[in-house]
Amino acid sequence: MNLKAKGSKAERELLHLFWEAGWACTRTAGSGSTTRPAPDLLAGNGEIVLALECKAFSGSNKYFEKNEIEQLETFSNIFGAESRIAIKFSRKPWYFVKIADLKNSGKNFGINLKLCEEKGQKFEELTSNDRKI
Amino acid sequence: MNLKAKGSKAERELLHLFWEAGWACTRTAGSGSTTRPAPDLLAGNGEIVLALECKAFSGSNKYFEKNEIEQLETFSNIFGAESRIAIKFSRKPWYFVKIADLKNSGKNFGINLKLCEEKGQKFEELTSNDRKI
Repeated sequence: MNLKAKGSKAERELLHLFWEAGWACTRTAGSGSTTRPAPDLLAGNGEIVLALECKAFSGSNKYFEKNEIEQLETFSNIFGAESRIAIKFSRKPWYFVKIADLKNSGKNFGINLKLCEEKGQKFEELTSNDRKI
Repeated sequence: MNLKAKGSKAERELLHLFWEAGWACTRTAGSGSTTRPAPDLLAGNGEIVLALECKAFSGSNKYFEKNEIEQLETFSNIFGAESRIAIKFSRKPWYFVKIADLKNSGKNFGINLKLCEEKGQKFEELTSNDRKI
């Protein structure tokens, strides 16, 4: 499975998790190939909208392009959504991390499993009714 | 251009209109082919989220399947969005119509240009700051 197919599979997996938790969720068409900022997923529960950039990978460190993160912030600010990076390491649960909690080198944004475990929320925490923002 | 390509072109046209008006907007991947309710477009301006089913056509009357409308309502209720049908007749502006204003025959939902002109909003009315909901 190539990287793009793997990414789409991870997005669909997360989309179904949201629906099963009672949220509505859509995948964005042309995410990564349109000139307009476009998060991978949008999820809403009548109170909160989440704009998500999703990444599933097998390594231990991951970097995001500055532009990718800036576009997610721009989109979320205009739309009225909270932004999160959704991260899935092999054989680990999904973690949801705020942009402010990524390691910002100035050139790009880094994340690893340790940072996810320290700063991230798991799916059940993110979607629970008494969630902390 | 086949119907699907024509539909995608109309959706992209509307997506850019929203961005140019200062809204954020996404097209949904797999709309019409996923098992989950999925509007064609989601647009937000920090205050309102709109879930849109888009149709561009050349005839004078159009019918929507009951299922299509029900899915738009379901999605909008869970997500926390206002639902609208976005209609584009040849050489006419986009009209935005509420589900409640469609002609409901019990089996399907009908719309024509006259109904759009009477009940629908134009893009500028829909997206203006002092819009009437």
